[in-house]
Amino acid sequence: MDTQIAPEGHLEVLSKAEVARLWDTSHGGLYQLFRSCALAVLNCGSGLDDGKELLERYKDFDISIVQRERGIKLDVKAAPASAFVDGVMIKGIQEHLFAVLRDILFIDGEILKNQHIDLETTEGVTDAVFHILRNAKLLQPQISPNMVVCWGGHSISGHEYDYTKLVGYHLGLRGMDICTGCGPGAMKGPMKGATIGHAKQRITNSRYLGISEPGIIAAEAPNPIVNDLVIMPDIEKRLEAFVRVAHAIIVFPGGAGTAEEILYLLGILLHPDNANLPYPVIFTGPASAADYFKQIDQFIGQTLGSEAQAKYTIIIDDPVAVAKEVQAGIKTVRAYRKQHGDAYYYNWLLKIDREFQHPFVPTHDNMRGLALHKNQPAHLLAANLRRAFSGVVAGNVKDQGIRAIEQYGHFEICGDSEIMQAMDVLLDSFVKQTRMKLPGKTYIPCYKVIK
Amino acid sequence: MDTQIAPEGHLEVLSKAEVARLWDTSHGGLYQLFRSCALAVLNCGSGLDDGKELLERYKDFDISIVQRERGIKLDVKAAPASAFVDGVMIKGIQEHLFAVLRDILFIDGEILKNQHIDLETTEGVTDAVFHILRNAKLLQPQISPNMVVCWGGHSISGHEYDYTKLVGYHLGLRGMDICTGCGPGAMKGPMKGATIGHAKQRITNSRYLGISEPGIIAAEAPNPIVNDLVIMPDIEKRLEAFVRVAHAIIVFPGGAGTAEEILYLLGILLHPDNANLPYPVIFTGPASAADYFKQIDQFIGQTLGSEAQAKYTIIIDDPVAVAKEVQAGIKTVRAYRKQHGDAYYYNWLLKIDREFQHPFVPTHDNMRGLALHKNQPAHLLAANLRRAFSGVVAGNVKDQGIRAIEQYGHFEICGDSEIMQAMDVLLDSFVKQTRMKLPGKTYIPCYKVIK
Amino acid sequence: MDTQIAPEGHLEVLSKAEVARLWDTSHGGLYQLFRSCALAVLNCGSGLDDGKELLERYKDFDISIVQRERGIKLDVKAAPASAFVDGVMIKGIQEHLFAVLRDILFIDGEILKNQHIDLETTEGVTDAVFHILRNAKLLQPQISPNMVVCWGGHSISGHEYDYTKLVGYHLGLRGMDICTGCGPGAMKGPMKGATIGHAKQRITNSRYLGISEPGIIAAEAPNPIVNDLVIMPDIEKRLEAFVRVAHAIIVFPGGAGTAEEILYLLGILLHPDNANLPYPVIFTGPASAADYFKQIDQFIGQTLGSEAQAKYTIIIDDPVAVAKEVQAGIKTVRAYRKQHGDAYYYNWLLKIDREFQHPFVPTHDNMRGLALHKNQPAHLLAANLRRAFSGVVAGNVKDQGIRAIEQYGHFEICGDSEIMQAMDVLLDSFVKQTRMKLPGKTYIPCYKVIK
Amino acid sequence: MDTQIAPEGHLEVLSKAEVARLWDTSHGGLYQLFRSCALAVLNCGSGLDDGKELLERYKDFDISIVQRERGIKLDVKAAPASAFVDGVMIKGIQEHLFAVLRDILFIDGEILKNQHIDLETTEGVTDAVFHILRNAKLLQPQISPNMVVCWGGHSISGHEYDYTKLVGYHLGLRGMDICTGCGPGAMKGPMKGATIGHAKQRITNSRYLGISEPGIIAAEAPNPIVNDLVIMPDIEKRLEAFVRVAHAIIVFPGGAGTAEEILYLLGILLHPDNANLPYPVIFTGPASAADYFKQIDQFIGQTLGSEAQAKYTIIIDDPVAVAKEVQAGIKTVRAYRKQHGDAYYYNWLLKIDREFQHPFVPTHDNMRGLALHKNQPAHLLAANLRRAFSGVVAGNVKDQGIRAIEQYGHFEICGDSEIMQAMDVLLDSFVKQTRMKLPGKTYIPCYKVIK
Repeated sequence: MDTQIAPEGHLEVLSKAEVARLWDTSHGGLYQLFRSCALAVLNCGSGLDDGKELLERYKDFDISIVQRERGIKLDVKAAPASAFVDGVMIKGIQEHLFAVLRDILFIDGEILKNQHIDLETTEGVTDAVFHILRNAKLLQPQISPNMVVCWGGHSISGHEYDYTKLVGYHLGLRGMDICTGCGPGAMKGPMKGATIGHAKQRITNSRYLGISEPGIIAAEAPNPIVNDLVIMPDIEKRLEAFVRVAHAIIVFPGGAGTAEEILYLLGILLHPDNANLPYPVIFTGPASAADYFKQIDQFIGQTLGSEAQAKYTIIIDDPVAVAKEVQAGIKTVRAYRKQHGDAYYYNWLLKIDREFQHPFVPTHDNMRGLALHKNQPAHLLAANLRRAFSGVVAGNVKDQGIRAIEQYGHFEICGDSEIMQAMDVLLDSFVKQTRMKLPGKTYIPCYKVIK
Repeated sequence: MDTQIAPEGHLEVLSKAEVARLWDTSHGGLYQLFRSCALAVLNCGSGLDDGKELLERYKDFDISIVQRERGIKLDVKAAPASAFVDGVMIKGIQEHLFAVLRDILFIDGEILKNQHIDLETTEGVTDAVFHILRNAKLLQPQISPNMVVCWGGHSISGHEYDYTKLVGYHLGLRGMDICTGCGPGAMKGPMKGATIGHAKQRITNSRYLGISEPGIIAAEAPNPIVNDLVIMPDIEKRLEAFVRVAHAIIVFPGGAGTAEEILYLLGILLHPDNANLPYPVIFTGPASAADYFKQIDQFIGQTLGSEAQAKYTIIIDDPVAVAKEVQAGIKTVRAYRKQHGDAYYYNWLLKIDREFQHPFVPTHDNMRGLALHKNQPAHLLAANLRRAFSGVVAGNVKDQGIRAIEQYGHFEICGDSEIMQAMDVLLDSFVKQTRMKLPGKTYIPCYKVIK
Repeated sequence: MDTQIAPEGHLEVLSKAEVARLWDTSHGGLYQLFRSCALAVLNCGSGLDDGKELLERYKDFDISIVQRERGIKLDVKAAPASAFVDGVMIKGIQEHLFAVLRDILFIDGEILKNQHIDLETTEGVTDAVFHILRNAKLLQPQISPNMVVCWGGHSISGHEYDYTKLVGYHLGLRGMDICTGCGPGAMKGPMKGATIGHAKQRITNSRYLGISEPGIIAAEAPNPIVNDLVIMPDIEKRLEAFVRVAHAIIVFPGGAGTAEEILYLLGILLHPDNANLPYPVIFTGPASAADYFKQIDQFIGQTLGSEAQAKYTIIIDDPVAVAKEVQAGIKTVRAYRKQHGDAYYYNWLLKIDREFQHPFVPTHDNMRGLALHKNQPAHLLAANLRRAFSGVVAGNVKDQGIRAIEQYGHFEICGDSEIMQAMDVLLDSFVKQTRMKLPGKTYIPCYKVIK
Repeated sequence: MDTQIAPEGHLEVLSKAEVARLWDTSHGGLYQLFRSCALAVLNCGSGLDDGKELLERYKDFDISIVQRERGIKLDVKAAPASAFVDGVMIKGIQEHLFAVLRDILFIDGEILKNQHIDLETTEGVTDAVFHILRNAKLLQPQISPNMVVCWGGHSISGHEYDYTKLVGYHLGLRGMDICTGCGPGAMKGPMKGATIGHAKQRITNSRYLGISEPGIIAAEAPNPIVNDLVIMPDIEKRLEAFVRVAHAIIVFPGGAGTAEEILYLLGILLHPDNANLPYPVIFTGPASAADYFKQIDQFIGQTLGSEAQAKYTIIIDDPVAVAKEVQAGIKTVRAYRKQHGDAYYYNWLLKIDREFQHPFVPTHDNMRGLALHKNQPAHLLAANLRRAFSGVVAGNVKDQGIRAIEQYGHFEICGDSEIMQAMDVLLDSFVKQTRMKLPGKTYIPCYKVIK
């Protein structure tokens, strides 16, 4: 499908230099980045979660900027049909395209080339995350704490999906906003449910915030309910954005990506500086997911210990209880922020160790070299376990990861036998429950646990 | 539950005389009407569809007006708990209470006591319907024709319900607004679906219009997604409101009420004056409803003939096709109105015969005396058949109807044997498919077809 | 000038019956009323204050309703050019035309023909005023008391005009809204000043309320800053509207009309029932107006006595002091209303005697027969004095009054010699200061004081 | 006066790094810049136009940022009382404070430290101006061309002031927005007039754009009607901002600053690349200003020649003609931009020579060294003449300029005798007409023309 779309209120004017930078003669770096993210956004609803296949399937896809007297337009060619209704692009997807453009230009222009921001320091990274979110107008100081981050798999059962909708509905009835990784499954259900809840409460300024990054967006195309999309530069800054905007986090069942998120979060909460910081975390699912969470809980106990287990609550099959627990937790967060003069809209007080900020590139060497042993503080082990699962996600769905696996075979994950044992069991169960990728093809593991 | 609620933008100021009229010393007519409608609104989501039982269950329920320096408030006592979330009344239900108050006062003050409006004439009734709708701010001239009236049962299967949601979703994606009788089932599903469609298209001023009347509202409490509720004085004016605001009508599977609506609509469309008026009517349901519509179609063929059958299209199991057919039909309606200078927001050109406007009171005598024979023009037979089904609805769910049945036994429906045969089969199938009332109790027919 | 205008948000839909009523075959009562008010509105800014001359000058003026698929339009022919800028009607004047239409239809349809409203009773009149204001959406319960009614002459000096602007400016800076009789001079200046004050305070929902009636509107065409115009049925209901929506009243210098307003107000405030009601009244003008107010004060002292003089404060040449006094006074009003549970938006507690409500028709007989003697309670004398000045206004600028004077000669005003003496002096000074009519022609008195 | 103010929608969240940068331990550069601009903004309406005196008068003035859970607040101490009404800061001035903060932080953080923007190149400067304006949300692509820049003196007669109001009124009636240098006199009058025109036309999103820079703001404090204030880094970028956002320019009578603006504008329009670019320029004033413009016109003829004189139209004493001429001119501009695909909101096509962009620092040496001779292209002579007048402005009202004059005596302006003769006459007339500074003190020239 071909079309031209206007921004209608979002990033309507670009400087000549910005347009030139995006469309340099070589059609180089920035353009390729924009094109692939745009394609991912347009592919929403297609049931494809393979970054490499997406690029190959839509080889003719092209997107360019047209300068008009009333500002820019995007000229889109050979786009996936699923983004259109009767030949007209869905409005939500139009907005996502302009969000992608906004963030890619901003990160290039105002983050990477800004001498005030030093990405080699912890403060610099946190500052960069702040600036990207502020530029996307996501930091709204007038709103009382109500942002619930929902994590969970993109590939979940219909039954689990309905449960995420119900939880979202009861959050929506209580005026909560929703933030997710913005793909299908557990990232979409809570938003759909909240939409109905908000409609009944006549809440018209609800925020359905989606946080993505260029590597994952192809596998987790933002669902069009997302009305605030932001593209972070990499997975580490995406995760930092999640934990700094959240007032509470709910974890639904999921696969390797969800495990990565859980380990990231627990690793941070285990940092001694965060010991007293209230941070509501709830694991929840329908009755059928009881075993799943038992296993996750066990894995955490075996690897990070009971201190980590104390950081979350597990609630099975009770959406109203989840909503009430979230509400109670956020009340504590609000009081704490007020008392300490910390912003409601950005969790400055949360300490994030450099280990969780430095981008991890899952090459075969890096994966093999991960320090997966207990001879280190729990929060550093969590950091390394996080990296291992991050690599599995890359090998499963990210363009570069898939290509690396095709070229060099599976990743090798090795370490203490006890930890390896636990990982193997966990990953294996993800495979068996088809949580690794959307159903359709047989899943071939991209990793091997060396016991 | 007890609470006080403020109107927040709806009917905020009342004159001293209006308040006095509502609360006259005798707590008489107007107050009782308001109380029972308010109770019905508050009972939303309870799974009860019995007007008599509702009033008996909430004997202590009380509602009164409090005058404040910033306008009125409603003081509610002993209200059903289902209207509240954590002790706070759902905003949508608050709005419904004020809509009820607005319409009851307006009908009493500006319709019944207005010497300009003569309810004994066809023009007077049409004018009254117009004034009630205008007062409720439902006649929006700036909006292009997009109002889809959805009819269908309040008691339908989960599968049928999901189908109505899907149809609503595809209508919502195409910018259509939804109007229903505002209860559960087929009246709620399309609104829920459209809510998601509208969210994806960033349509924030969507209209979910519910049209009710004091007799039926207890059985079909407005679902809180309804953001424009209007209470018409009786079932005939409610039906006239439907057909004058609709730009297209979709009929989902339903029971006696749906049959009443179909017969009302076909009776009008069969009037010679309406022969050339474009009026899109679609019967639709999931694959499992194919037989249901075959039967309805047969009944219409047997009673009103093939001319009536030509007035609608049946589409089975294809929500996208339904949405496209509606869209195409509305395009024709729009062109016709523009050509004839008729308003987009109110179908003045539609001729409605006095037979369809005069209130029918389903007493046992009136029911027995219905002229259900073929020796009359098709549109008059339709009028009488409509009355018969209207009586069945009353006997099923309306307070007065139920009391009449309790006192005098079932209604007797008699007429031409061919027609009686067809009716018996149809009503019987409604019973078997539990379309008469919400499941839970065994349904005991309130009627007997005399063959 | 000819044009067609759309309502854009105001009274967009009319019923067939309403249109028919307005355009009955005889082009009778309602139409003539609408036409002459519409002409007055369009004549704004022309410097003409003669109702009779206006009608004669624009004999070809015509206005009619066109029904369109998106609602009504007004078709205007041979309208005064001053209503247009480069051939396009000023938006504010467009709105005024639709306000006139709205009120004329409402008063005919919902007040005069409504069996609930009995205009022969005090309560009925107050109720009618309430309904007309509510229908015009002027009763806004969410706004804290801030409505300052400004009275004063339409024909004042440039210096006095600048003073009214300054007072308006300082009221605007303090968030006050302005209500006037909506013509030029002292009715326009405060609104202009407040507009600048509101702009500096970023108040975008300011209300510039103009209250008129069919007799006076031709002489006092609403200035286009007026963004809420309401046409009351007659001068008495106009005055009642003023005193029931005001939270404070400022009186600038003026002529017979201003004297009428002052006497009406004092007459009401002198009613024993209103003795304890806080009601801020300020007489103010520039230094040059000091003598003027001395004379007014004297006249009040001579006729109504010192009790009446205690009802107002005179502030000369100090706009900031006026604004602060108003603010302080409104604070008291607010506290009183809150304490007594009276509405902020409508002064129900103010007692208005039937004498001030019953329409006074200034025929020669009625004028001659006025009881202008001291042998009655002060508030009744005030009522009769009010009528005398009302007659003078009619003879000066109202179509019917001018015709009556042309036919029968001047009105005769007679009564106690002391009162006559005082009136003569006062009226004479109005003439000398050209406050009776806009300058341009020599003013010939329409009255004779019989001493 | 002391107070704390919240941003209410403007720049509500700052990063920790931004706050730290502003408040570095030394209370150094950024803070001093912010403090002096903030003080200038607060001094609005005081009748003081002396940057040095302002700083000395309010030595105790202090302003700081307070971090709150809902974003920042500004804590203001010992501020000028004229910014307050009854102890509450005027809302428009509050907004200006946050605009100052926004621009100072942005220029420091995103312009000076951004490696993409090279201020040594013409493109870089134009890009910087674009970015500052975009960040201030002044580039609104959806608005049709309607921005009228009004130049003229801050010290003009009451009669001239009233004329600027009238012109503004007729522009406002025609839907034009106004942009000025944002001080008193000719910078305030058109905005006041337009406010009334916009009110009558119900235009609620009008833009009253003020463009200032740190050097001049103390002498020309933004009047609170300005609802979009932007602080450019220096006078040259301020002038570039004017000519790139303008769709037409009106010049009212003024002094040295107005002469600087005229010469800047003509110098640019004389550039060969701009020969065919439509650019409406109108010089206008009341009848009393006829001589003034004769003199200006003569000066331009003597120095830049008749080609320059062809670039503007002089209209005396006819506000409606001015408004119509502007309207006609903008129509041409619009057509040209559309045809050439240039933005409506930013005049990219206008060629501005490096000579007009490079900041000129008016030291005594630089002033003495200006090449004020005819032996150069007219547009370069215009550039140098512009610098000469710029120096006079600095010596008159800017803090640094005044200090330089105090220390080293008057500036010496030298060059061709013909040009010097003309300048002397012109400057002398400015002095005689009290256009150099606000009346009150005797003006002592800061310059000497060396003939």
